[in-house]
Amino acid sequence: MTSALAGADIGATLTRLRQSTPLVHSITNYVAMNPAANVLLALGASPAMVHAAEEAAEFAALADALVINIGTLSAPWVDAMLSAAESAQQQQTPWVLDPVAIGATRFRRDACARLLEFSPTIIRGNASEIIALAGDALGGRGVDSTATSDDALTAAVALARRQQAVVAVTGEVDLVTDGQRCVRIAGGHALMPRVTALGCALSGVIAAFAACEEDPLLATACALTCYAEAGAQAGQTAPGPGSFAVAFIDALHQLSADALANRTPLEISTLP
Amino acid sequence: MTSALAGADIGATLTRLRQSTPLVHSITNYVAMNPAANVLLALGASPAMVHAAEEAAEFAALADALVINIGTLSAPWVDAMLSAAESAQQQQTPWVLDPVAIGATRFRRDACARLLEFSPTIIRGNASEIIALAGDALGGRGVDSTATSDDALTAAVALARRQQAVVAVTGEVDLVTDGQRCVRIAGGHALMPRVTALGCALSGVIAAFAACEEDPLLATACALTCYAEAGAQAGQTAPGPGSFAVAFIDALHQLSADALANRTPLEISTLP
Amino acid sequence: MTSALAGADIGATLTRLRQSTPLVHSITNYVAMNPAANVLLALGASPAMVHAAEEAAEFAALADALVINIGTLSAPWVDAMLSAAESAQQQQTPWVLDPVAIGATRFRRDACARLLEFSPTIIRGNASEIIALAGDALGGRGVDSTATSDDALTAAVALARRQQAVVAVTGEVDLVTDGQRCVRIAGGHALMPRVTALGCALSGVIAAFAACEEDPLLATACALTCYAEAGAQAGQTAPGPGSFAVAFIDALHQLSADALANRTPLEISTLP
Repeated sequence: MTSALAGADIGATLTRLRQSTPLVHSITNYVAMNPAANVLLALGASPAMVHAAEEAAEFAALADALVINIGTLSAPWVDAMLSAAESAQQQQTPWVLDPVAIGATRFRRDACARLLEFSPTIIRGNASEIIALAGDALGGRGVDSTATSDDALTAAVALARRQQAVVAVTGEVDLVTDGQRCVRIAGGHALMPRVTALGCALSGVIAAFAACEEDPLLATACALTCYAEAGAQAGQTAPGPGSFAVAFIDALHQLSADALANRTPLEISTLP
Repeated sequence: MTSALAGADIGATLTRLRQSTPLVHSITNYVAMNPAANVLLALGASPAMVHAAEEAAEFAALADALVINIGTLSAPWVDAMLSAAESAQQQQTPWVLDPVAIGATRFRRDACARLLEFSPTIIRGNASEIIALAGDALGGRGVDSTATSDDALTAAVALARRQQAVVAVTGEVDLVTDGQRCVRIAGGHALMPRVTALGCALSGVIAAFAACEEDPLLATACALTCYAEAGAQAGQTAPGPGSFAVAFIDALHQLSADALANRTPLEISTLP
Repeated sequence: MTSALAGADIGATLTRLRQSTPLVHSITNYVAMNPAANVLLALGASPAMVHAAEEAAEFAALADALVINIGTLSAPWVDAMLSAAESAQQQQTPWVLDPVAIGATRFRRDACARLLEFSPTIIRGNASEIIALAGDALGGRGVDSTATSDDALTAAVALARRQQAVVAVTGEVDLVTDGQRCVRIAGGHALMPRVTALGCALSGVIAAFAACEEDPLLATACALTCYAEAGAQAGQTAPGPGSFAVAFIDALHQLSADALANRTPLEISTLP
């Protein structure tokens, strides 16, 4: 059984996001902070990076969405992440977990296990990360994925069902599932993985959409579609990753509901 | 009663800055560190980011100016900020306070209250932040301003008089006061708030000018004018915030004393 | 006595690097993290920023090379740096020390003294930093060099012999020595020191080459040559440091073994 998500609906969600400028509380890694803020501003959301244990819960309660990314983890940050996640869960604020390089060290696996207790609304990672988080043995050597999105389908569905969360596996083709339904989003550009932290910034974009669309599967599909569309636009002229990063921010800023309306509808299939 | 600050004088101050390359000790947030360093280098100053409690005071004593920005605060950083601010005060080194999102949490209000005891030379914020710092009840939800510069005039004058500091409220039109005098600077470009941390970087630029011009009101007006001029230049060609950020750095680098000399003099009015 | 390093050999080493995509564990400063990651990705390596004491040693053991940069030091980071350096030494993983602004504070001198005990394979700094590290009295006021590469030759050779390490002094002309041999690399562009953290990112590039070339003097010479070539390319069109930074990343991405083969061979002289 399948249904569809029309480009016009994605465009309407983007318009709603720009009108409401959701405040996205971002506890993300040092590499990603600057591009993640610029990506959210270009899209039309309002980023805020707040990570002290003394204020993370208080700030999370003010925000429209929360994203937690473990890229450059340390013990004091884990405390703040847990406190913010708990606050988001209590407030029913949607929150996104980005388990960067979870396969690499025990410290990361332990931190993610504790974060999962606060029920992230959406989990986004590359195939290696999602497989590692689901408990499989593949792991990953660092932040780059060494498995494809399809390898991760089984892991993603299992993780989504166990956590009652939406799981997004991003790569050449993105895959989103809530354990019952599944959507694939193609597009983007080969230079995207050559620019650091675009994946991390994407997790913030998913959080921004989750503040504007109640169904987290659809919110995630909207975010990934906007990213893929802006990436394809940027890739049309950029000769390398430096100019690609600049053009990508411009493309997110210029992305129109009309351009999205012209896209082929996304097919949402029901899993067996 | 009014006097004026001629464009030629602003240009002469910029030339002096470039000749002396002031060392600007910057304790700023993680999002801003990289663009703040690039902005200072493009202008002609020498940035140094040093935040450990073990060395902040020692380094502040070497620097020509200090900027403290509470954007991504944490307890150990507050200690270093206090230690650097005390050192700057003792050495009579000019220092700038940037109270990012002070209205959002108690942790930020407490940190700023303690920093104010070391008498910042200049305080720069958006209207919401200056109103919150002055003790009014408006506050702000995060880092973006929800009030205009004019709303903040009363608060800015009260704060300047209480702290014996220069207060700069930046926005579409900037406003600078030392409690006795007031200057407004227009210009810049609509894309500036779409690039993260340009405001934070501006606080560093104000610090750099304060190292080269004894009157902190004039130093601040020079900094804001250079920023507005470079912003207007960058905005002439940039299609979005990605390319704007690049063009803005280029424009600061290319900004000439001659171009500044052509600007209409700034009117400095005496407050009643 | 002299030998030479042909451009074709440098190109072959770059090709090897791109085929093996070495994982470069980077403990670097907050200003540099983002550009350092983008520089490594553009070149063809795989960066990972991991700095918590809880995982630094474990991660260093997975990596192909390690770079430690003390730019924005703090006490917990020193612990992680020491733990990662020890792990690298035990695994015989090549590692690079970048002693940013070592002359500025006692905290930095002490941290570097402890790091030197774990025998860095390569040490890279500007002239002021290398002189300070070698124990001379010149020092430096911050992160910018106030001495030239030639001033630092004596210090570099002494440091290389004492540490049994390769020492690279970078500036308008770069100088590399292992205490027995010496190479100079010219090129680059006058805008390079106007872009923050390009020197820090270079230390990561040296680490990436050290993972692909056993002789650390040759590895360093290859890295510096690629950097100089990309810098010269970028400088051909960039009107300022903003666009230079973008063009430099593109140029690293597009840098070809063929372009390198056309360069004049580097002369490797034997020291008396």
